Amino acid sequence: MSDVSAVKAALKSQVIETPSWGYGNSGTRFKVFAQPGVPRDPFEKMEDAAQVHAFTGVAPKVSLHIPWDKVADYAALTRHAEGLGLRIGAINSNVFQDDDFKLGSVTHPEAAVRRKATDHLLECVDVMDETGSPDLKLWFSDGTNYPGQDDIVARQDRLSEALTEVYERLGEDQRMLLEYKLFEPAFYTTDVPDWGTAYAHCLKLGPKAQVVVDTGHHAPGTNIEFIVALLLREGRLGAFDFNSRFYADDDLMVGAADPFQLFRIMHEVVKNGGLTSETNVNFMLDQCHNIEAKIPAVIRSVANVQEATAKALLVDGDALGAAQRSGDVLASNAVLMDAYNTDVRPLLAEVREEQGLGRDPFAAYLASGNQERIAAARVGGTQAGWGA
Amino acid sequence: MSDVSAVKAALKSQVIETPSWGYGNSGTRFKVFAQPGVPRDPFEKMEDAAQVHAFTGVAPKVSLHIPWDKVADYAALTRHAEGLGLRIGAINSNVFQDDDFKLGSVTHPEAAVRRKATDHLLECVDVMDETGSPDLKLWFSDGTNYPGQDDIVARQDRLSEALTEVYERLGEDQRMLLEYKLFEPAFYTTDVPDWGTAYAHCLKLGPKAQVVVDTGHHAPGTNIEFIVALLLREGRLGAFDFNSRFYADDDLMVGAADPFQLFRIMHEVVKNGGLTSETNVNFMLDQCHNIEAKIPAVIRSVANVQEATAKALLVDGDALGAAQRSGDVLASNAVLMDAYNTDVRPLLAEVREEQGLGRDPFAAYLASGNQERIAAARVGGTQAGWGA
Amino acid sequence: MSDVSAVKAALKSQVIETPSWGYGNSGTRFKVFAQPGVPRDPFEKMEDAAQVHAFTGVAPKVSLHIPWDKVADYAALTRHAEGLGLRIGAINSNVFQDDDFKLGSVTHPEAAVRRKATDHLLECVDVMDETGSPDLKLWFSDGTNYPGQDDIVARQDRLSEALTEVYERLGEDQRMLLEYKLFEPAFYTTDVPDWGTAYAHCLKLGPKAQVVVDTGHHAPGTNIEFIVALLLREGRLGAFDFNSRFYADDDLMVGAADPFQLFRIMHEVVKNGGLTSETNVNFMLDQCHNIEAKIPAVIRSVANVQEATAKALLVDGDALGAAQRSGDVLASNAVLMDAYNTDVRPLLAEVREEQGLGRDPFAAYLASGNQERIAAARVGGTQAGWGA
Amino acid sequence: MSDVSAVKAALKSQVIETPSWGYGNSGTRFKVFAQPGVPRDPFEKMEDAAQVHAFTGVAPKVSLHIPWDKVADYAALTRHAEGLGLRIGAINSNVFQDDDFKLGSVTHPEAAVRRKATDHLLECVDVMDETGSPDLKLWFSDGTNYPGQDDIVARQDRLSEALTEVYERLGEDQRMLLEYKLFEPAFYTTDVPDWGTAYAHCLKLGPKAQVVVDTGHHAPGTNIEFIVALLLREGRLGAFDFNSRFYADDDLMVGAADPFQLFRIMHEVVKNGGLTSETNVNFMLDQCHNIEAKIPAVIRSVANVQEATAKALLVDGDALGAAQRSGDVLASNAVLMDAYNTDVRPLLAEVREEQGLGRDPFAAYLASGNQERIAAARVGGTQAGWGA
Repeated sequence: MSDVSAVKAALKSQVIETPSWGYGNSGTRFKVFAQPGVPRDPFEKMEDAAQVHAFTGVAPKVSLHIPWDKVADYAALTRHAEGLGLRIGAINSNVFQDDDFKLGSVTHPEAAVRRKATDHLLECVDVMDETGSPDLKLWFSDGTNYPGQDDIVARQDRLSEALTEVYERLGEDQRMLLEYKLFEPAFYTTDVPDWGTAYAHCLKLGPKAQVVVDTGHHAPGTNIEFIVALLLREGRLGAFDFNSRFYADDDLMVGAADPFQLFRIMHEVVKNGGLTSETNVNFMLDQCHNIEAKIPAVIRSVANVQEATAKALLVDGDALGAAQRSGDVLASNAVLMDAYNTDVRPLLAEVREEQGLGRDPFAAYLASGNQERIAAARVGGTQAGWGA
Repeated sequence: MSDVSAVKAALKSQVIETPSWGYGNSGTRFKVFAQPGVPRDPFEKMEDAAQVHAFTGVAPKVSLHIPWDKVADYAALTRHAEGLGLRIGAINSNVFQDDDFKLGSVTHPEAAVRRKATDHLLECVDVMDETGSPDLKLWFSDGTNYPGQDDIVARQDRLSEALTEVYERLGEDQRMLLEYKLFEPAFYTTDVPDWGTAYAHCLKLGPKAQVVVDTGHHAPGTNIEFIVALLLREGRLGAFDFNSRFYADDDLMVGAADPFQLFRIMHEVVKNGGLTSETNVNFMLDQCHNIEAKIPAVIRSVANVQEATAKALLVDGDALGAAQRSGDVLASNAVLMDAYNTDVRPLLAEVREEQGLGRDPFAAYLASGNQERIAAARVGGTQAGWGA
Repeated sequence: MSDVSAVKAALKSQVIETPSWGYGNSGTRFKVFAQPGVPRDPFEKMEDAAQVHAFTGVAPKVSLHIPWDKVADYAALTRHAEGLGLRIGAINSNVFQDDDFKLGSVTHPEAAVRRKATDHLLECVDVMDETGSPDLKLWFSDGTNYPGQDDIVARQDRLSEALTEVYERLGEDQRMLLEYKLFEPAFYTTDVPDWGTAYAHCLKLGPKAQVVVDTGHHAPGTNIEFIVALLLREGRLGAFDFNSRFYADDDLMVGAADPFQLFRIMHEVVKNGGLTSETNVNFMLDQCHNIEAKIPAVIRSVANVQEATAKALLVDGDALGAAQRSGDVLASNAVLMDAYNTDVRPLLAEVREEQGLGRDPFAAYLASGNQERIAAARVGGTQAGWGA
Repeated sequence: MSDVSAVKAALKSQVIETPSWGYGNSGTRFKVFAQPGVPRDPFEKMEDAAQVHAFTGVAPKVSLHIPWDKVADYAALTRHAEGLGLRIGAINSNVFQDDDFKLGSVTHPEAAVRRKATDHLLECVDVMDETGSPDLKLWFSDGTNYPGQDDIVARQDRLSEALTEVYERLGEDQRMLLEYKLFEPAFYTTDVPDWGTAYAHCLKLGPKAQVVVDTGHHAPGTNIEFIVALLLREGRLGAFDFNSRFYADDDLMVGAADPFQLFRIMHEVVKNGGLTSETNVNFMLDQCHNIEAKIPAVIRSVANVQEATAKALLVDGDALGAAQRSGDVLASNAVLMDAYNTDVRPLLAEVREEQGLGRDPFAAYLASGNQERIAAARVGGTQAGWGA
């Protein structure tokens, strides 16, 4: 995409959805370190998300996580969000924290537990109705820790049954986003461990079922951009959960561990139409800011996705195609690297300026005094977190 | 399966297919170490495979690799095999050693190269016709080494086109076995890197297209038995390429690196009907005996598969199911481990004795003097190998 | 070791140390599932450990974890343990759960935090004095999550300083066991990530500093038995933390994921003198029984270590050495596999019977009614756990 | 390093050593694809290396590999190199391609084979004497493929013996560079698998023994820059073998797979004095250009190292240290990322211009017509390669 104005227009129209839980406390099994100023309820989370949007201009949507964001009045929460310039994004179900779910939720050996789990998923569709959310995001921690613990195929059958019931409950403009993950918290089998399993279920469910690619959910060495390209080819890439990792599902800021990989992913997205509204890929963050300040970390993450997108948009597609067709390995690689090596921060600064925003959202936020303000104001109460 | 006679019957009816190239020289990119007595042509390879069958009783089929096993008269080779008590198994195509295939075969950017590659695949179907082989086994080394080198999606389109043409050429009783592999020799993208990609292509091709699981072709941490269970559930598990690995595609003797994993795989096979003739799973070896003597290594490998199968057959399915349904993690694991911890070598010795074979095929082969005989006889000529 | 009585004697003299925290609740960052009957204090943990020892006969030592096992009167706790036939094993320090340790403990940029951390380590030596514990076990979660976050070399300097101070505080018969871990909870650098780093520090500290090998703390593909052999060769293998894993630091029951690996490790231990009292290797468990019942899981784990040890003791060393010296790859591998494939459960049953124990400790424990007893008795109070 | 002229001076003084074998053919076990214009002998390799130096200005040294570069008259080869503006760098031994080395070289069970291997290493020191090479680079493919195949500790003893003999043969200004590698071609144990093993041997040998870090020789997830920092702290980082990998030892162009990792490595080098002549780190390439044109690939690789070095030199050390000391995770990470995100190509273009070179060495080389010239001239003869 050689036309700078087209690049800028694409960057301005991009939407990056931030997760409500990214503003709360998080940690590892060893310790959750609390931070000053962390929100105490979903309404305060919206205020933090609004800060991110105010300084970046591309983050108007917020994912909710039920029950972490359970409120008595979803209409009120939605109005609160709208008042802040936001709208409700994906509804994330949680069937991993009830004591009944120790051995699984929708794949549990006992029918009563499966019923309870499926009912929660249906409840999430109710929340979609109430909030206008278009996406039901399903991640199942279901799996086993020991060989023999349960029947792999029987669990697939149970999974399929629950997914079918929930799929049928979806409204016209609602879709199901099915996430896969290699491991954790299950340590032997996970019931949806890879894109192939998620894809196979989506195929059987119908066109409203699509796959979520969480960039931290793969085995070492997996080529993620390949999966992205394949899912786009099949029309089944529903969303990203962006984050980064050096080891496992580290949930670090997206772009922090391997910015070149993020660029390669965005290159496949751009090349295969994934930025267009028709394709309707939801670009979500799913991160844990265990030791860094949360709002600026989300701002940094949004900027990292923007930078990778900008570089992907700068790839000279004609030159790349010509080099590829001629079998010139070094030349085709060079076209890609040329875009990657470009410093796109000035371009993004211009884009922001044209939108009436500060050139550097990270610095602008830090200068705004908000961080000090919330640290002072949000004293007392129970800070939001995972409740693990 | 608690009935010993049923277990024995299952073990007697198992068929393990051995690869012609397993009898030839192999090595790494650093060195191929030649061994005394290695066959000089496909006819001698058959004689070696016949030794394995003679001492194990379960290895009557031999996979061919074209062009490594190219002969002027396939009918003569087939008759030679039959005279030795063997029959021809899968025909393995080779589209990775022609100079034209440096940048790919059926996914190459140039149409002429793709035509050449597809023609080779069609030629392999001709060989199937001539030898009575039921299985066309396709492994593509196609991929790229550098980001940007070629278009991931365009390569899928080209792959799909070639597979479709070959699929349509298959006869009534012939099937296509599509193999996946994470990497090597391609080091950035591989065009069929995982079971999901192979499965997606097979689904579009039709029921005669099935997936091959090579146990050495996964990312670290991948749960292979999960994939096996899923493919059996979908009716798409066509074959195994058995071998073992500590690191990458090491191609060591099956069961040598992780015998418990092999048992877990065979447990899923047994549990999900994969041993029955209706399911028609082809249990192939695909190994490289770089430093160990080849015929005894194949015998050891066959025995290792038999031992894993025997243990899987000994799993007390009723007790396992009951423990699983009751959610007793330790008890269900214990049922599986009880079978695994059993020393099944006496049982297999009995099975062999009942078939008129020696109780220990490895020892019996070594005592037969064949190894010394072929070392003395096969002098001169060019030893078979990969020709890399 | 061909002499059965010698094998039995070795098995009877083995000591496996169990961790106090293995009897408490544990989980993942997603959820800790509570279990009935879990101890409420260190005294009850001792009672559970005593059960394991009563049924296995080889688990008379218990590791403590400070502050999880902090008590007002360590002499009383020690007497309680001794009354149950136990003694106190390693004292495990904990410098990862205080809010001050968010960015590190002994490697923290601030001197005051380092002082606090080192003081805790010194306090642990006090506990050693009070309990008669011979081993100070140090695991540092210290590290960074983001490139640039801190200076790698400066952190090594700080680590070295703290270790030196603590080492000098050790008494004549006390030693320091330094543990390494690839990652978690730190996700970019860990200050002691591998055996080489631990070894380098131990070398500088002196002979009372030795390395702990936790079997779940390595990168995928790492050959753990190689490290064990090397450390034994250098006289620096202080202890094991046994557990097993399919993915990361899963902390599953030892032997549950790869029993062949456990056998290979014990083979190196036996072969290189690691079972003798002179070598003084501490065979500890360090596991998390997230979903399975804890006492029977520890019993199972102890039995798994015993089975691997028994198999290692059965390796025919003379035959192995002869095959190795002759360069016979298949024969030397066969000697090892012969021992591994042996079902040693009858041998261990005999050993236990000779010690006046039940033949199957797992079944005997379940039949004892203890599990029901503690579930009924331990109601109210706060169950022990990690307090994360 | 904020001073631009100091940065430029550092870049001008950097020396990157290129490998003679990088100009020859290479491939995988599946196929070596020949390329037009590949040198037929070590003299022609020097000419290719001279091209790289001519266009980059920082590659005046060439590593040799014996026996691939064996010549009757090393003085003549040295003079040829000097005439081209080059000098001889590290001498790489090769004890993995003789038929005798199937089961090991210096660690082989048989003394005669070990003698032969050690003699080759001593011969390499002779070559050092004749060529003026300062570095003996030792990589051992030694290891085993199967558990039990040989005695891990005995092999360490044999290794130690050989290293000691060779170390004692070294002259005053010669050093030994010991390389480690996780696996390949050995698939169970490798005798020097990690930095810890190499370091332990170097410690015992003496100050002239140092460790080589080949960036492709680690387990997945290993933090390489951590190892680099540690070895610099210990004064034991002798050299790099630069290349890149997505999976195993892929030997792709350095910086091609993870340019951010390369930058982080160079950051540790710069920060810990590794660029100074006193530290004497040898920055070597060790790559295989299997499918891309070789000379331009080496030029690209040299440029990639330069770009990573330039970015590392641009890190604002004062700002970084201040942020680190204050525990500001986001700020310290931002300082590093700011340098990484800078497009340093204009700076390097200036540096080259100031040295009388073309601004873009890759483009300048392609425009020079050399590639066409050698393709036309080098017809007939046997192309250089690994001879595997």
